[in-house]
Amino acid sequence: MAVYTQVSGEDMTLFMARYDLGALVSFHGIAEGVENTNYLLHTDKGQYILTLYEKRVNSGDLPFFLGLMEHLAEKGLPCPTPLHDKGGVVLQELAGRQAALISFLEGYSVHRPRVSHCGHVGRSLATMHIAGEGFALQRTNALSVQGWRALADATASRADTVALGLSEAIAEEIAFLEQNWPEGLPTGIIHADLFPDNVFFLGDELSGFIDFYFACNDTLAYDIAVCLNAWCFEEPNAFNVTKARALLRRYNEKRSLNANELAALPILARGAALRFLLTRLYDWFHTCGSALVRPKDPREYWRKLRFHQKVKSVGDYGL
Amino acid sequence: MAVYTQVSGEDMTLFMARYDLGALVSFHGIAEGVENTNYLLHTDKGQYILTLYEKRVNSGDLPFFLGLMEHLAEKGLPCPTPLHDKGGVVLQELAGRQAALISFLEGYSVHRPRVSHCGHVGRSLATMHIAGEGFALQRTNALSVQGWRALADATASRADTVALGLSEAIAEEIAFLEQNWPEGLPTGIIHADLFPDNVFFLGDELSGFIDFYFACNDTLAYDIAVCLNAWCFEEPNAFNVTKARALLRRYNEKRSLNANELAALPILARGAALRFLLTRLYDWFHTCGSALVRPKDPREYWRKLRFHQKVKSVGDYGL
Repeated sequence: MAVYTQVSGEDMTLFMARYDLGALVSFHGIAEGVENTNYLLHTDKGQYILTLYEKRVNSGDLPFFLGLMEHLAEKGLPCPTPLHDKGGVVLQELAGRQAALISFLEGYSVHRPRVSHCGHVGRSLATMHIAGEGFALQRTNALSVQGWRALADATASRADTVALGLSEAIAEEIAFLEQNWPEGLPTGIIHADLFPDNVFFLGDELSGFIDFYFACNDTLAYDIAVCLNAWCFEEPNAFNVTKARALLRRYNEKRSLNANELAALPILARGAALRFLLTRLYDWFHTCGSALVRPKDPREYWRKLRFHQKVKSVGDYGL
Repeated sequence: MAVYTQVSGEDMTLFMARYDLGALVSFHGIAEGVENTNYLLHTDKGQYILTLYEKRVNSGDLPFFLGLMEHLAEKGLPCPTPLHDKGGVVLQELAGRQAALISFLEGYSVHRPRVSHCGHVGRSLATMHIAGEGFALQRTNALSVQGWRALADATASRADTVALGLSEAIAEEIAFLEQNWPEGLPTGIIHADLFPDNVFFLGDELSGFIDFYFACNDTLAYDIAVCLNAWCFEEPNAFNVTKARALLRRYNEKRSLNANELAALPILARGAALRFLLTRLYDWFHTCGSALVRPKDPREYWRKLRFHQKVKSVGDYGL
């Protein structure tokens, strides 16, 4: 949400001269991406996004992220794709940061998704899962079940200051999920962070996914579980079964969910809720008092977790 | 430097429907303008800037700022100009803020101005001073000599924690300037904050001025003094007389400075240095510890002030 690294006009002009993409006309730091610095550039040929990778991104992961965006775009998923300079190079250095110039994606995110948006997201998520097949690189999901205990340990002592009983509830949930986490389900490339912020629409049509910096190899249905939490609850925390049904049906039209995936969905949704509960809790305690990056309320995800704990089967999600 | 007010895609689409400027294609919060929230919008017809006025801007001043931009653009100064909606309205409301849609200005600021840049700035500043003639509204410069004592009072007790002796130096300078501040010089519309951040270039040509939110009625030559400080010193604090000469000469080509203005320039430059010393000092003590908006070093302007205190005449500025 901030421009951490300033680039001068002089340096930006030199940088763009590496590409065959026209002369620089303007550039503006944009307030997007919690982790990185992003600029929106105009040349006389078009618009581009320049991302400077800040310290929180492991530079060893960049070939995975950039290669994945290129792979998915080639396979027909609408998403930004890294651009090659005149020498064919994607990963650059600028202002002391690793950097990449990325194609510009039209559209903008919605804050109050409707049923039709959820359907589009389901369908495009299935498209992404299919498009991810054949991508050669691998990345482990560090924020899945094997990573939760460490996150819980880092927040347990203060969790009850956010909500009484939260610390114990997290410990019990981790114990349950470690015992019951599904295995053997279809795996592949998942987005792992497909919140409304990361999906662009143009009018009522989905124009693309952005922000692949949590993408990894994991259980495909877990990605659906993340989306159920991110797209199908309404303020203050009512689950909208019509939205869930639209999301699941349109996913299923494109990529059929097997019986095991359907049966596992309630547990995967609990895991997805716990994952965002834990990272929000961590950020809650580790964000300094700046008004500019306001940490998101962890309790929202505790309420979502409690909803899924009462779910009996995928039927409760409308399918 | 931040997006203080979030606007949803849904609300932005409705907002743009007030204008006859095409359908919204994308929008991004941009990290520009310390005081306000700015979005860069694309429609199928072009690009626009949307400014949401945050609390630090006095809403009573908005007709002056917006009217001035429109007046200057009509008179031929390259600068952003407010756009009228289908009903002819400029000042809007959006997301609980007053707001205005502004034309997009190509170009970008330079971080290390060269002599030619300084010449362009001098010439365009004269163009602006001439273009300002006939603008009907008035706005007092609250940050000129009559405002400095209050700023000094708000910072005096802690000024010596920034640099030993600073508090006394400020008190002496204010006493001197209150006694010697020039009167009767030509007045008009001044920009009052024409730092390199607020001037755009395309290649070597100046493409326009931005950010008129300190503009006011005051002594025209004071605007030149602000520019001498902002454009003609080099790191760490060497005054570059070649840059100053270029700035003054090219200003003078377009609008002749009279003998009184030339004689007053060293004192005006002291005043301009003190003004930014005081506001930087104020911000130094009143910015919370966030890393995102880093306050600028007040001592830079103390060093500039000391330089001008030793200047004997405008000849020391190269003219």
